[in-house]
Formats: sequence, C-alpha cells, structure tokens
Amino acid sequence: METIRLGIAGLGRAFSLMLPTFIADARVKLVGACDPRATARAQFEADFDAPAFEDVGSLARMPEVDAIYIASPHQFHAAHTRIAAAHGKHVLVEKPMALSLAECDDMIDVCRSANVHLIVGHCHSFDTPYLRTRELIASGAFGDVKMIQALNYTDYLYRPRRPEELNTQEGGGAVFSQAAHQVDIVRLLAGSRATRIRAAVGNWDRARPTEGAYTATLWFEHGAFATLSYNGYAHFDSDEWTGWIGEMGQAKHADDYGQARRKLARVQSKDEETRLKAAGTYGGESYLAPSRTKPDTRAHQHFGPLIVSCERGDLRPLPDAIFIYGDERCERHALPAPRVPRVEVIDELIAAVHGDIAPLHDGAWARGTLEICLAMLRSSHEQRDVVIGG
Amino acid sequence: METIRLGIAGLGRAFSLMLPTFIADARVKLVGACDPRATARAQFEADFDAPAFEDVGSLARMPEVDAIYIASPHQFHAAHTRIAAAHGKHVLVEKPMALSLAECDDMIDVCRSANVHLIVGHCHSFDTPYLRTRELIASGAFGDVKMIQALNYTDYLYRPRRPEELNTQEGGGAVFSQAAHQVDIVRLLAGSRATRIRAAVGNWDRARPTEGAYTATLWFEHGAFATLSYNGYAHFDSDEWTGWIGEMGQAKHADDYGQARRKLARVQSKDEETRLKAAGTYGGESYLAPSRTKPDTRAHQHFGPLIVSCERGDLRPLPDAIFIYGDERCERHALPAPRVPRVEVIDELIAAVHGDIAPLHDGAWARGTLEICLAMLRSSHEQRDVVIGG
Ligand SMILES: NC(=O)c1ccc[n+]([C@@H]2O[C@H](COP(=O)([O-])OP(=O)(O)OC[C@H]3O[C@@H](n4cnc5c(N)ncnc54)[C@H](O)[C@@H]3O)[C@@H](O)[C@H]2O)c1
Ligand SMILES: NC(=O)c1ccc[n+]([C@@H]2O[C@H](COP(=O)([O-])OP(=O)(O)OC[C@H]3O[C@@H](n4cnc5c(N)ncnc54)[C@H](O)[C@@H]3O)[C@@H](O)[C@H]2O)c1
Repeated sequence: METIRLGIAGLGRAFSLMLPTFIADARVKLVGACDPRATARAQFEADFDAPAFEDVGSLARMPEVDAIYIASPHQFHAAHTRIAAAHGKHVLVEKPMALSLAECDDMIDVCRSANVHLIVGHCHSFDTPYLRTRELIASGAFGDVKMIQALNYTDYLYRPRRPEELNTQEGGGAVFSQAAHQVDIVRLLAGSRATRIRAAVGNWDRARPTEGAYTATLWFEHGAFATLSYNGYAHFDSDEWTGWIGEMGQAKHADDYGQARRKLARVQSKDEETRLKAAGTYGGESYLAPSRTKPDTRAHQHFGPLIVSCERGDLRPLPDAIFIYGDERCERHALPAPRVPRVEVIDELIAAVHGDIAPLHDGAWARGTLEICLAMLRSSHEQRDVVIGG
Repeated sequence: METIRLGIAGLGRAFSLMLPTFIADARVKLVGACDPRATARAQFEADFDAPAFEDVGSLARMPEVDAIYIASPHQFHAAHTRIAAAHGKHVLVEKPMALSLAECDDMIDVCRSANVHLIVGHCHSFDTPYLRTRELIASGAFGDVKMIQALNYTDYLYRPRRPEELNTQEGGGAVFSQAAHQVDIVRLLAGSRATRIRAAVGNWDRARPTEGAYTATLWFEHGAFATLSYNGYAHFDSDEWTGWIGEMGQAKHADDYGQARRKLARVQSKDEETRLKAAGTYGGESYLAPSRTKPDTRAHQHFGPLIVSCERGDLRPLPDAIFIYGDERCERHALPAPRVPRVEVIDELIAAVHGDIAPLHDGAWARGTLEICLAMLRSSHEQRDVVIGG
C-alpha cells in the first residue's frame, strides 16, 4: 500500500471537512500540523500524537512530512505553498488556489523548481459523479458537448464567516469561494478551453457586503456554452433537485429550513461571528469529531443540479447516480456509495507522489479556474464580455 | 354575462390548444373562421354551424364578429391585424406578436386608429401561477426582486414543423417561438424595464438549421438580473421539476420518453413533415377533438421551472401551487385547479372589450418582448451585450 505522511496547515472548517477522509483512508497518516489557534493545536496533538506548531515553517521543516495540505485562509495559500515547496514537500492546497494570477504563477514556478507536485483541492470537481460523467462524454457515445446548465441555491452567505470572507478585496464572497467549485466542474465536463465569459454578480445584503450570488455564461473553444448560476442568499434549496442529498453527500432535513439565518441573527458583532465559526471547527467548543457525527456517506458529494447536453443525449450527474437521457431511452447508472468520502483527492495525491502521474487538478488547471472567477468579477463590473486567456 | 363573438384566423395547432378554452367558456361564441386548409374549414362549419372562409378579409367583413383571434403563422400576424382593425374588430393575436419592431409599431398604430383593443396571447405569462406570483411580489412583503432563474428543457425542435418554423429568417426557431413565452414571464415578474441582454443561442442540428436552444442574462433598470435558459433539443425533461405536470397542465408519463424524436425519424421530407403537423391539428386526419381527448386540467399551464429571488424570500410558481420560501419558513400556497384552461386570456379580452380596461398584454407590452427576443439573436451573433430600448 502506498501511503502519504501529511502535514496540515490550517485546522479550520476545510480541515474538519477533510478529516473524515484522512481518518477513513488508511493510506494517509497525519504527522504534524500548524494553526495559530491553541485549542486546535491541542486537539490535534491529543488526537494524532503528533506535533502542532504555531507557524507553517516549523511544520515544513519536519522531515517526516511528505506533503502539506494547505487549508489556511485564501490569502495564505501562495505564501504557504512557497514555504512547503522550499522544504521539498508536495502541496495539496485548498480552493481557490490563490487570490491573483501572479500568485498562481509563483506557486506553479516554485513547485516546478522544487520538483514537488501541486494539487488544488478538495474541489467538487473531484466528486465521482462528475469524473464519471466526464468519462461518459469522453467515450464519444453522445457526441460533442453543446450546452451545460449548472445552478446552486444555498444559504452560503449566512453561514458564520471571518471578516475577510465578506470582503471581496480580500478574496471574500461567492465568486472566490463558490464559483471556484462550479467553474471547475463545468470546465472539466466541457472538455474544451474556455474563451470568454459574461457575468452578473449579486451583492444585495448591506450587512454582508460581498457577492452572494452570480450568473454567468461561459463560452468554450469547441462552440459549447455553459450557464452557471449561484444564489448564496437563497431561501429555496436546490438540493430538492438532487434527491435531498446535500453538498457533503448527507441527507437533508426539512426541519433545518432557515437554520443558518436564524443562528446568525443571534450574532452581535464581527468578532462574535469569527468566534462562532471557529467554535464549530476543529478544536472549537462546539466541534463534533467525525467519530461522534458519523459522517453520512450514503451518497457522493456534489455542487448542485447540473445537466450536460450533448448532441445525442443529456447527462445528469447526481450524488447517487448518473442519469443518461439518450435519443431512445433514459437510463440510470447507479453509483455505489463512496467507501471513503473525498477519496478521489487522496487517489490523485498518491498517484502523483508515488506514480508520478500528472494530476488533473494541477496548478495550471486551477489557475485556469481562478482566471475565470476573476473574469466574472470584471465582466460584471465593466458590463461586458471578458476574453479568457487573452 | 358579458360575451364575445370571436372569428378565428388560422385553424391550426394554436387554435387547437385554445379550443378547449373557447368551448368551456360560455362567454365565447365562435362565429366564423378562415384557413386555406379545406379540411379545417369543413370541420369548423360542422362543429360550429358558422362560416369558414379561405381568406381573412371575408372573415373580417362579418358583422357578427367582435374580435378576431389571429392564430395564423407568425409572418401573417401584422397583415391580419391590419385587416381586422380596418374592419373595426378587436384583435387577439398569437405570440410572437410579429417578426419585426416595425410590424409591431404598425399593429399598435392601426389598432389605436381604429379604436380597437390589441392583445397578444395566449402566452404563458397569462398563466395564473405567474400572475399570482406577480401579486405577491407587488405586495412588497418580500422586498425587491433581485434574481430570476427560468429554464425549460423540452423536445421543442423535434415536434413536426412547417418549413418556415425551421428558418430563423422567417421567424423560425426557439427564440421567436419559445423565448416569446419565457421573456414575457420574466419581464412580468421582474416588474422593471429590461435594459440590456447578453445571449448565446444554440443551433446544432444540421437537419433543422435554426435555434433550438439559448441562454441569456437579462438586466433590469432596478438592478435585478435574470437567467433564461431553454433547450429544445433536450433529452432531459425539466417537467421533472414541476411535479411531472406538462406545459399544458397535463400529467406527464415516463412511457412517452423520446416519442417526438421517434415519430419524426419516420418522416422522409419537408412536405411530409408539414402534412404531419397539419394532420394532428384541427380538421386533420389524426386530430382528436377536445371532447374526445378530455383536456387534463388538473393544474395550471406553465413554462418550466422558475425561481424569483427577492430580498426576503424566494417565490416559486408551480402548476398547482406557489412555494413561498421566506426567512423563517416555507409555505405552499395551493392554487385551485383552473375551471377553464387559459381562462385568463378570455378574462383579459372581455375586460378590455366590455370594461375598456387596458390589457396587461397589449401591443406595447408584447413589442417589448419581441425587442428582447430580437436582441437575443443579435447579442449571440455579435458576441456582446445589446442595450434594450437604446
Ligand atoms: N473544499 C471545501 O469544501 C472547502 C470548505 C471550506 C473551506 N475551504 C477552503 O479552505 C480554506 C480555509 O477556509 P475555512 O473555511 O476552513 O476557514 P477557517 O477559518 O474555518 O479555517 C482556517 C484555519 O486556518 C487557521 N489559520 C489562520 N492563519 C493561519 C496561518 N498563517 N497558518 C496556519 N493556519 C492558519 C485558522 O486559525 C483556522 O483554523 C479556504 O481557502 C477555503 O476556500 C474549502
Ligand atoms: N400560445 C401557444 O401555446 C401557441 C402554440 C402553438 C402556436 N402558437 C402560435 O400560433 C401561430 C400559429 O402556429 P401553429 O403552430 O398553430 O401553426 P399551424 O401550422 O399548426 O397553424 C396555422 C394555421 O394557419 C393556417 N393559415 C396559413 N396561412 C393562413 C392565412 N393566410 N390565413 C389564415 N390562416 C392561415 C394554416 O393552414 C394552419 O391551419 C404562431 O404564431 C405560433 O407562434 C402559439
């Protein structure tokens, strides 16, 4: 069995969401961490009998670490990648890759120079339903992709946030955090280079002054176009159209309606909100360990309803199946429940590190997604198309 | 009871779809018709004991006619309106109003000069779920409209068509015929003037070389934006998201999957296709009278899944209910089944003719919708935003 010894930079919500994977996948060994939060460090040391530092440099200097999972806030992704690479560690960095294309270029350069792999994820484009749909398209059985429809209605903007998550200048808002998923999935399925985009963003809650919503049309070199819509102010929950299975593959309950807004309404200040977010993640006072929450992995993770229309059929990836609507008949390809949630991320990491197999979600790929996200903001602001790669 | 004596210009599919309304609504009396098809004329004379002419002029000269329902192909709407108005008849003309804005201006002028009302419909923006949603928005309870999502996946392009319906120059394709509905609904719900549009059209079946699909972003003066998507090449049927109730309010059956494509595959030529379309409409050999088909009116008609996001709630009109997703809770407002299908059209016509109440769907309104449809074609062709009313 090929294993990987992982160091964690940032023990917050992203880490909490990856932890069930790290625990369930025997190939992964957590050997160190860093985080400015003392409670998170204490929890990590107790849980994994491994050191947790205040700073990423100390983590990067650990000889036992093969790769660092960078799950710190967006604004640190570039600097932490640089430090990891400088110490010869492979990098798995959370989405969005960074805040600017210059940062992305730097990250790609330093990893190439250091001869380490750079993978950007978890991102929902790792989810098996999309990867399988991509294979079905690549088989050629349905002809060219012509049109993609992707939408997602969530309570994104009303979950507790750090201040910078509500400030677009610092990488806040739905375009940096959520389009990063949706654009990545759509690019993967289109299988062609994106050439231009026209977008409109929504920023309509003065108390949380960043993008909570967007809609965009994305054009591809081979002629297809895609519609991407996201509403993070939503009251309607589009998981109704994915069989009431949520983003994390979990069952959704009607009783939870309006919960995010209700909880947030009790918060009085930015500081209190930051504390509320931290309290719910690793080492926080209201944090529940995966062993206690028993992650619900009855289905794959996903990022909202999506339909790919090809010349001879429509494909619809769902958390538990892919519906294949052909000229003659409609077939449901059942997808077995995942053995380990997000195992696709570990598969890609291990394949790169041990098999030297070029990852799908490498730096150049993720840079392409960030370029489109930045172009969305610009298109909306300048009220015109933005040419991609131009 | 206020009644209306109606003359029918064009006894084809549109008429067949309105016939259940005309029969069920005691206020309507069909007193004459015209159509070049002899079988349709014979059927009309037998069914209604009223004359059917070859030409619209003879119909317009009938003193018994109060209003003419112009359900001839698009390219005749302007000329037939002119003739009806010249004889002092009110006009109910099918969507799209005409093929050009110049034609629309002419139609508005001649009707104004003749002092007759001009109503454009049936259009799905007459459907009760949208009209009620509009009232809910107007109540102010949910704040401003911010974002609208409208989509529809159908087999539109594979239903039997006349040659001009497959030629954009002559008014063919999904933009003229289907966006006419979707744009009208979205404008009605936005409640603000549309200012610009960016669209992409899909024209990807060489055997049927017109637009079968489109996606568009539409901006409104008060700041909202809407996403409108239509795929008439679809294999996926978006009626899955409207409770398996079809466009005409009917129950949908999984067994019918792929039916349109299968039937069309047997057709050898354009002539045969034209005959196939005619055969299925009024007076045709495979036509089934409403009394024999018993129109399924368990629910209202509709034009696909749609969500209006307001500041304090999302509204979702469905064929049998409006879902109101508020900050606190989600409520389902049941809509009683319609007494008469499309009765809203007759209500608006009678109110105009007898009450002199300005119709919602008047010439100026419908011209606005055509302007947007034409701008969609131009935006896609010129690859840029088109300013509306500019
Ligand atoms: N893929 C996903 O599903 C997913 C989900 C959530 C977040 N994310 C991504 O993960 C990243 C973190 O977001 P989050 O929601 O977990 O935020 P968070 O605030 O919950 O977690 C960030 C953690 O990093 C720590 N941190 C801050 N500065 C640090 C530093 N200099 N060095 C090391 N650790 C530091 C914080 O104390 C905190 O514990 C973001 O880039 C976000 O986009 C991805
Ligand atoms: N609102 C709706 O749900 C709906 C549905 C279908 C069609 N329509 C509209 O109705 C119009 C007709 O389309 P259709 O699908 O019924 O086509 P169709 O071909 O089925 O019917 C048109 C009818 O008009 C007749 N006709 C042709 N030339 C004529 C003339 N000069 N004078 C009088 N009659 C003439 C034809 O013989 C035919 O019977 C179009 O504008 C279309 O957009 C609306």
